Amino acid sequence: MLLEAASALGVDTVVMAEDRADAAARVGSRVLLGSPLIEHDLRELAAAVDVVTFDHELVDLELLGELEAEGAVVRPSAAALEMAADKATMRVRLSEAGIAVPAFAVVGDARTPDPLDAVAAFAHRHGWPVVLKAVRGGYDGRGVWPVPDLAAAAEVCAAAASRGLHLLVEELVPIELELAVLVARRPGGQSVVWPTVETTQVDGVCREVAVPGRLPPAVGAEAGRVAGRVAEVVGSVGVLAVELFFTGTDLVVNEVATRPHNTGHWTIEGAVTSQFENHLRAVLDLPLGDPSPSAPHVASVNVFGGASGQDPAGALAGALSVPGAHVHLYGKAPRPGRKLGHVTVRGDDPADVRRRAWAAALALGTPVPGGVELPPGLAAPVVGAPRRWP
Amino acid sequence: MLLEAASALGVDTVVMAEDRADAAARVGSRVLLGSPLIEHDLRELAAAVDVVTFDHELVDLELLGELEAEGAVVRPSAAALEMAADKATMRVRLSEAGIAVPAFAVVGDARTPDPLDAVAAFAHRHGWPVVLKAVRGGYDGRGVWPVPDLAAAAEVCAAAASRGLHLLVEELVPIELELAVLVARRPGGQSVVWPTVETTQVDGVCREVAVPGRLPPAVGAEAGRVAGRVAEVVGSVGVLAVELFFTGTDLVVNEVATRPHNTGHWTIEGAVTSQFENHLRAVLDLPLGDPSPSAPHVASVNVFGGASGQDPAGALAGALSVPGAHVHLYGKAPRPGRKLGHVTVRGDDPADVRRRAWAAALALGTPVPGGVELPPGLAAPVVGAPRRWP
Repeated sequence: MLLEAASALGVDTVVMAEDRADAAARVGSRVLLGSPLIEHDLRELAAAVDVVTFDHELVDLELLGELEAEGAVVRPSAAALEMAADKATMRVRLSEAGIAVPAFAVVGDARTPDPLDAVAAFAHRHGWPVVLKAVRGGYDGRGVWPVPDLAAAAEVCAAAASRGLHLLVEELVPIELELAVLVARRPGGQSVVWPTVETTQVDGVCREVAVPGRLPPAVGAEAGRVAGRVAEVVGSVGVLAVELFFTGTDLVVNEVATRPHNTGHWTIEGAVTSQFENHLRAVLDLPLGDPSPSAPHVASVNVFGGASGQDPAGALAGALSVPGAHVHLYGKAPRPGRKLGHVTVRGDDPADVRRRAWAAALALGTPVPGGVELPPGLAAPVVGAPRRWP
Repeated sequence: MLLEAASALGVDTVVMAEDRADAAARVGSRVLLGSPLIEHDLRELAAAVDVVTFDHELVDLELLGELEAEGAVVRPSAAALEMAADKATMRVRLSEAGIAVPAFAVVGDARTPDPLDAVAAFAHRHGWPVVLKAVRGGYDGRGVWPVPDLAAAAEVCAAAASRGLHLLVEELVPIELELAVLVARRPGGQSVVWPTVETTQVDGVCREVAVPGRLPPAVGAEAGRVAGRVAEVVGSVGVLAVELFFTGTDLVVNEVATRPHNTGHWTIEGAVTSQFENHLRAVLDLPLGDPSPSAPHVASVNVFGGASGQDPAGALAGALSVPGAHVHLYGKAPRPGRKLGHVTVRGDDPADVRRRAWAAALALGTPVPGGVELPPGLAAPVVGAPRRWP
């Protein structure tokens, strides 16, 4: 999606991909096969472009820092990526800056010889259950373990120790709504903030986004201000995504990602300027585009691979017969549970846009996990055999 | 732009380009270097894909017909392309179907030993001036010669004879407004029609598009009906563009193109479904998307290379500082007069969207030809030296 935006602006791109079959490698004009974890490969990329940017955080931050010191333009910087990649650093910096985060403690590092003691002490102060999180490497619900008691915590701590993972412990925040906000920020600090959205997460994975969703306008506005502050603290350049919990009274920052984010895919059709275009504009230090919504209500539903391993591309006809459904398929090999695409619908009525977005996603064969309530009249899909065009 | 839409839908593409530096070759995932005029190349393309489609008409129709006879799926068909490529065939078929076209006569073919006699006879019936047109190969004002008298006609006829061109002669239609309509049509005949737009043409080249522009609504609706009829007569599959003249009382069809068209670039942001997405959906025989406009007013201004040969990519910052300007650059090597991009703006006020679209186009260095009246407050550009990012 970043490459589609680059193509529109006439910006030349070089894509680093580990495999020629990767979705991005199939769209990019020039592809470097390689890994951002391998010095030779990353140096080759840096030498080939004016600006290095990212669509994930699984990079070698030390190496990136070296490249920056040698004069490569890396946006966001290694320091900003570090904060997003390391939940402990992020929690500490944000709370030092006066931004509300869940009550937390770092456990399992060198200063804490017995992690379980630290968890027990934290639970003593904040009560059970608590949430244990891997300090690094968590993503889409991976690396997050809610635990009801000390026995369960002991199991997670033992497993983490055997894998060399450092842990955080956090209070289990009573969530009324989950929110997300995108900020695009230029090197000089100029930034724009998209409208706050409501997200529906199941097991830490975003299933749908509603714009503006059910959140009170004042809460959305406050989340936008918080996200703008987070971008300043992180020193991000490009798009930064902030995920927050609303408890009914308070907003706390849960996650931060320094890249275009799944909770912002709705901006392709639902905002005047998409997150992908503004990410490019930001990292190229060009004026940022208007983040205003292009319709009163927008719904975006993610499409995941079903148990049958069926390719949603074979079911495009059904999805495209839904009026106003903007279908995006990522060209990934279908696997059960893999995020393969999304559907966005914009309109005047929140129930209507949600119904249409789900109708198209169901036509594409997405499974419906517990925790998602389908719009009235829709049922889990019955999908026929895939077919080839024409 | 077609490839950007294909990427979003997850549709795999193979691009045939004559040169790896061609704009489309720089975006396509798989590129066949070759020519649609060379049998080997076209056969290689047809063997690699499920559906062959086009973004220009400069193809070998006889060869395409052979491939179709052998079972290749070619959309639009060679027969439909033939009608768009051959102005004489197009004029004859449309007028036989009761669709108004300018008064015309075919001259300079085997049945007319002296073309100039035919021109004189036509002018005797319809009066001078007349317009001479090449039956094939005309594009963007090339192959069109308005002539005031017999002496000028003689010059054009002589030049055409020396180049082996066949000619049409037409009345010079008194034009009050120039219009364009896009139709997307599936193999079974299902079609959608976008709103009629007003175009500003200078020397046969489209400079800007206004949606809906100054045309009376009833005229726009009638033009839409005419275009739908044209698509049926042509038997088009994919997008068909119809350019019309409005005389103040009558609508006549001027040109027909069986592909996504420059007068439809506004649909990328200005319509629920773009011409590029619906072209793909049509040629893949998938349900067509909603062609409704996404804003009350849309303006789109083309960007041409200036006399200095400066690359508009170096002036992106100025263009992107215009609020709501959607900038598209095609990645073509800049040459004076070459179409290098376009800018689209949508909004509530026709004067405002036009002013912003022109402001961004001027920032990109587009020259302003005689015949275009700039919006108040804008002046021809003063463009600085191109710069590199960052």
